[in-house]
Amino acid sequence: MSESPEITLAEKIKHSAAKKLVSIVFQPEGLRAQVPEGTTVMDAARKVGIDIVAPCGGIGECGKCKVEIFKGKISETSADQFWLTEKERQRGFRLACMARVNQDVVVRIPFATRLFSQKILTTGSGEPVDLDPCVRKFFVQMKPPDVVDQRGDFERLLDTLGLNRSEYSVNVEFLHQLSNRFRKADYSGTAVFVGNQLVDFQPEDTTSKQFAVALDVGTTTIVGTLINLKAGEQVEVMSQMNPQMSFGDDLISRIDYASTHPMGVLELQRRVVRAINDLIAEAAEKADVFREDIYEIVMVGNTAMHHIFLGLPPQFLGQAPFAPTIQSSVRVASKELGLKIYPRGQVYTFPNIAGFVGGDAVSVALATGLTERKGNYLAVDIGTNGEILLAVNGHLLAASAAAGPAFEGARISQGMRGTTGAIERIQIKDNRLVLEVIENVPPIGICGSGLIDAVAELRRVGLIDQTGRMVESTDENANLPDEISRRLIDHSHGKAFVLATEEEAGIGQPILITQKDVRELQLAKGAIAAAVNILLKEAGLSAQDLDEILLAGAFGNYLDRVSARRIGLIPPVPVEKIRFVGNAASGGAQMAVVSKEARRKAEKIAREARHIELSVRPDFQEEFMDAMFFPKIEDSE
Amino acid sequence: MSESPEITLAEKIKHSAAKKLVSIVFQPEGLRAQVPEGTTVMDAARKVGIDIVAPCGGIGECGKCKVEIFKGKISETSADQFWLTEKERQRGFRLACMARVNQDVVVRIPFATRLFSQKILTTGSGEPVDLDPCVRKFFVQMKPPDVVDQRGDFERLLDTLGLNRSEYSVNVEFLHQLSNRFRKADYSGTAVFVGNQLVDFQPEDTTSKQFAVALDVGTTTIVGTLINLKAGEQVEVMSQMNPQMSFGDDLISRIDYASTHPMGVLELQRRVVRAINDLIAEAAEKADVFREDIYEIVMVGNTAMHHIFLGLPPQFLGQAPFAPTIQSSVRVASKELGLKIYPRGQVYTFPNIAGFVGGDAVSVALATGLTERKGNYLAVDIGTNGEILLAVNGHLLAASAAAGPAFEGARISQGMRGTTGAIERIQIKDNRLVLEVIENVPPIGICGSGLIDAVAELRRVGLIDQTGRMVESTDENANLPDEISRRLIDHSHGKAFVLATEEEAGIGQPILITQKDVRELQLAKGAIAAAVNILLKEAGLSAQDLDEILLAGAFGNYLDRVSARRIGLIPPVPVEKIRFVGNAASGGAQMAVVSKEARRKAEKIAREARHIELSVRPDFQEEFMDAMFFPKIEDSE
Repeated sequence: MSESPEITLAEKIKHSAAKKLVSIVFQPEGLRAQVPEGTTVMDAARKVGIDIVAPCGGIGECGKCKVEIFKGKISETSADQFWLTEKERQRGFRLACMARVNQDVVVRIPFATRLFSQKILTTGSGEPVDLDPCVRKFFVQMKPPDVVDQRGDFERLLDTLGLNRSEYSVNVEFLHQLSNRFRKADYSGTAVFVGNQLVDFQPEDTTSKQFAVALDVGTTTIVGTLINLKAGEQVEVMSQMNPQMSFGDDLISRIDYASTHPMGVLELQRRVVRAINDLIAEAAEKADVFREDIYEIVMVGNTAMHHIFLGLPPQFLGQAPFAPTIQSSVRVASKELGLKIYPRGQVYTFPNIAGFVGGDAVSVALATGLTERKGNYLAVDIGTNGEILLAVNGHLLAASAAAGPAFEGARISQGMRGTTGAIERIQIKDNRLVLEVIENVPPIGICGSGLIDAVAELRRVGLIDQTGRMVESTDENANLPDEISRRLIDHSHGKAFVLATEEEAGIGQPILITQKDVRELQLAKGAIAAAVNILLKEAGLSAQDLDEILLAGAFGNYLDRVSARRIGLIPPVPVEKIRFVGNAASGGAQMAVVSKEARRKAEKIAREARHIELSVRPDFQEEFMDAMFFPKIEDSE
Repeated sequence: MSESPEITLAEKIKHSAAKKLVSIVFQPEGLRAQVPEGTTVMDAARKVGIDIVAPCGGIGECGKCKVEIFKGKISETSADQFWLTEKERQRGFRLACMARVNQDVVVRIPFATRLFSQKILTTGSGEPVDLDPCVRKFFVQMKPPDVVDQRGDFERLLDTLGLNRSEYSVNVEFLHQLSNRFRKADYSGTAVFVGNQLVDFQPEDTTSKQFAVALDVGTTTIVGTLINLKAGEQVEVMSQMNPQMSFGDDLISRIDYASTHPMGVLELQRRVVRAINDLIAEAAEKADVFREDIYEIVMVGNTAMHHIFLGLPPQFLGQAPFAPTIQSSVRVASKELGLKIYPRGQVYTFPNIAGFVGGDAVSVALATGLTERKGNYLAVDIGTNGEILLAVNGHLLAASAAAGPAFEGARISQGMRGTTGAIERIQIKDNRLVLEVIENVPPIGICGSGLIDAVAELRRVGLIDQTGRMVESTDENANLPDEISRRLIDHSHGKAFVLATEEEAGIGQPILITQKDVRELQLAKGAIAAAVNILLKEAGLSAQDLDEILLAGAFGNYLDRVSARRIGLIPPVPVEKIRFVGNAASGGAQMAVVSKEARRKAEKIAREARHIELSVRPDFQEEFMDAMFFPKIEDSE
């Protein structure tokens, strides 16, 4: 058999190579590989499908591929000595690209070292966050029990995943099925954790199917964002009207209804839950995701929306001293609220700051990193209940402004949300009226940004005076070109301005801005501007001291900054200091979906923010009256 | 008005005294007192009804009355410098008897410093534990919200109690009622916490009404102990048969039933839950306690009883490798198991060691402090499923022995539990049979301790030989007095011995020990003795090396040590080394009811114990066969 020396050599090599196989186990998955002695941890990880970050290409020149040697030893390399602290090295950290395996080892790959742990950016404004969601799925292959290893099934799972037994528990409902599930799947499958609780064990590798929803429940609009937790990516964004609108379009009407009707709060809760269920079902269907693969909902909303969502009576929010039932974040089983996702799914609600400054304001502060910057920053979340945040070197002042729903198109005679057919941009150029309509169809109404533009332009050309009154076309001060002045008509609400004639509009009647619409806008912007002014006063600052103004809100990027400043919605600062941050309330919720650290930050923001209650300020009425007027043209340009 | 100088002086004094009042708030209750400047913290505490330990009588000579100054300052005294460490003093600790209040302060009184925090002894054997239960009630008087203090209701409560906001949550069901409850009670009442969760707020001071139950669910017997959590005292102990007995008197029959019948485990669970509910109702009625004032149940039991209690399918416990579903402790809402106590009450189940060594064994180890001693200690919990624990300088070996229910009177022809009418003690003295019957009535049966005595005595006088055979009265070796030998009769099961004649007995028929009864006892004691021998062998010890043998079990103190040794149930050690520790399994559960620290110890014991699986030991069958025989008379005396 061994006449040929080549064969003998080959056999020898084969033999010696076979002898040199060592075993490497990767935690927390418990994935195992047999590799020839001398293989790098990075290559071994690749073999079992774990990709490790290696910006330098795996040549020891970036120091990013830190892993922890859990059991067994791997000697230090000079790259380790260069990139890692002594403490890290002592704790067993090594660079995966340089670490060569020469004995059986167990290696933990931190999330930050994994390729799927990319920094993700959830909003245009927020800081990127590490992907470290509350919901986690692990594909795991366990060694089945035998007579010398009789560990409990649950402990076997935790041990295989390298999770500390004293930190994890198991959902008792699922516990009933656990042993049968493990055995049917031959101890190989996907463990599902929500927080530190094991809630499921699924046959096969289902780690690609893990989703959560960031939910922004506004007084007028609900926005839901479906997020793929493995990739840390938005999958779908959906919005719809809050069906509680039929109980009144402002918070006070809702609170009244809930307080004066038996089961009123439950009725309001059921409405909003049904709408959320519809929204989630629709988003899931569009994204081709099963609702049962959605494991968590993170909810932000103002305090009244928060209370109603949880079924807490909101009545005390409606009367002085407006104390909420709870400020802290709340965790509750999704099924307890009637939300149709994974049956043992969970809901996390953002912490509130005060009775009218809720989790949505916290979420804006979180998404914009407001408390993490040096300088003076003003963030205004424009909505039916507007939140005003002023951060002075990280110290946060917060107030709420009952703007009403004008910005979202409600209470405006031909107002509508910013969807197809809405006039979103208006300019008067060369004495002609130029409209931009969403999706370029004949206009059917006007949305918030269009309304602000319209009023700002009419103000600029002098058709609206400083008090908000639409001038008579015969007014001596009105030196208006014919093209504009003939659009000014009489109307049951006083004057009105024709944005689109019956022929131009798509609804068989003209689209108007009435005197009453202007008054609604004045009330709305006055409430916000008064709140801004009081916060500035409280901090001893003036508009000139602001480093930046962040505009948040559902109609975010559509607003024209010059128009907003011209009508006095925001203080007179150079336009380049005004930045849109989109729906930052939703952005913060999305950060909390993918990052436990973001939740800790949110709790801290809520705990440390100083709330300024405007209703008890003797100067509020005066500020409000002042702020309802429009600035002089020269002051606002 | 001020002609008389005396009056002026008195007024002056009064005036200056009034000026010198300072405020002191005691945490975590939030109780407030106004006291004259210079009052000691101890006297101020007494004023609001908090008694502080003062073994020295409050003269600074014992150092026990440590309190923490939370807000405000109190200067150090020489007593502080003598009794407290520098670190303690820096953290604000002072001795309450010496600390004089000269400004407004907030003082935290640690539980260990309170008079009601006596050390309590729950069993004859265990170490005293600090009263620090999982369930806590605090009477609290909060400052109601106002426009400058708009904190949430929940946060207001936590702040007033000095509890850390980030560590506490609130039961969501109760959250719905929280705001109304606070307001109806004018922000004054009793907050109820189970663990770190607020579950209730009751008007008035209900702190005297806080109870919990320690539950020892044995294969044959259920023992429930009602405990007053404020006093840390047993209020009532009740026991009854486990109604699962009708599904088989050993664990394997129950496991079989649960595994082969659809809904079998639920049926068994329902039975035991109903029995527990009856037992609790009865105990509560006897003690004049409302069931709704019982907030927690701590359950110990063997692993099969644990699984069935929680509704977990026990089938895998019945087949090799006997892996349990979970070893860790489990927390579950009492209502999820159908247990009728306070509606938002909780259940805590002890951690298990292995498939047949459950929380009851952990509880015995906890109650006896087995792992906290130097030396070699054997603990035997005698029950249907016997647990054998061997601690060698704190390292614990554990095994289980399927003794069967003979010790609890089952499978014995006239066996019964140790209640009225049971023969519990038998001696043959001067050739006469002397019986002791519980409550001195004509006997109606024989309980475990009586059975062991009977067999030991019959063995001593030579009526039972070393193999367990009852001798023929005509046997040449039997040199028996007539009074004894004429009690030996023929019976359908072979020989039998008449303990009480038809006339002596209270049931209209004689009370016998049959040959079959002796065989049952041999099987039972053989199982336990074999397990003991294997553990000793595993540890490299012999009986002579044992410092003490602790006998635990429901029939605890009733067993005669000499008889137990004579039949070979326990190893041959001097009788003074054998100590009864009563129902230590229940004792450990009671410790866990009143002490969170005891729970942590239990978890540690379960995690660190080494389980010896007897069924896979090649030497088990031989040890078992050997151990079934009786020792030679001379060896066992």
